[in-house]
Amino acid sequence: MKHTISVLVENHAGVLSRITGLFSRRGFNIDSLAVGVTEDKTVSRMTIVVEADSYTVEQLEKQLNKVVDVIKVRTIPQEDLISRELMLIKCNAGGRTRSEILDIAKIMNAKIVDLTKSTMTLEICDLPARLDLLEELLKAYNIQEVMRTGTIALQKGAAAVGAKG
Amino acid sequence: MKHTISVLVENHAGVLSRITGLFSRRGFNIDSLAVGVTEDKTVSRMTIVVEADSYTVEQLEKQLNKVVDVIKVRTIPQEDLISRELMLIKCNAGGRTRSEILDIAKIMNAKIVDLTKSTMTLEICDLPARLDLLEELLKAYNIQEVMRTGTIALQKGAAAVGAKG
Repeated sequence: MKHTISVLVENHAGVLSRITGLFSRRGFNIDSLAVGVTEDKTVSRMTIVVEADSYTVEQLEKQLNKVVDVIKVRTIPQEDLISRELMLIKCNAGGRTRSEILDIAKIMNAKIVDLTKSTMTLEICDLPARLDLLEELLKAYNIQEVMRTGTIALQKGAAAVGAKG
Repeated sequence: MKHTISVLVENHAGVLSRITGLFSRRGFNIDSLAVGVTEDKTVSRMTIVVEADSYTVEQLEKQLNKVVDVIKVRTIPQEDLISRELMLIKCNAGGRTRSEILDIAKIMNAKIVDLTKSTMTLEICDLPARLDLLEELLKAYNIQEVMRTGTIALQKGAAAVGAKG
């Protein structure tokens, strides 16, 4: 089962390497990892998606809590998950295929962000599964380049793993 | 000056930790790092934004090229950069302030993804500087939680750092 863990860390050099090191030493299969600054510039927030059973995730939470610079760790319950991912995808397009890709973009709520005589670049921000779908649909047009951010998540409702407390 | 480096890596356990380790050992100041799967599931693409001079970035490219599992490294020229970032941001909102935040969301092209009696959660996908702006605007409403993906980038035009070669 996929679990989504939100981790608040001090924004020090080396903290990312300590956390990724922990995962690789323990052989955890990270599905996705994203890290970005928060409302407090001295603090970063990581979203880690792992494929594991509940017991393993509990152990992982304990290990993360032991890492210096880790402020807070929380596994977001599946039913409370707001998860999103961003993808830029460049594929071949010219003449007739251009309008086919435009149709797909419209249906999938993707934006065209660049266009050349032979290529189109699309941007989509949605549930990770929707990104997979767009990628699948564009395979027919020879995908040139894909960059995805990894999943980020917040908990629904008023609950917050805030930097302040 | 900010530089944006696109790195293709084999999707092995430990590769992220090797690369983040390289940056932390050398004391590089990573502004943002994002990693996600590509069109080829055995390959991941990382976008790294660093604040450094051109000489340092060149050294860094060389170091990255030496890392096992690194397939390709390219610094994307500033003028050819398509860069995007995604943010989820939760702030206090109720009664009157709800419609104020709704106005900000409309102007900034942000989506409301969750609502409670006392909070609102917004999603924005745009240039990193626009995310900063939205965050700044929402500070007046007590930000509860911010999660950003880190910047991802592709090169404009038909050029591609493709997984295929």
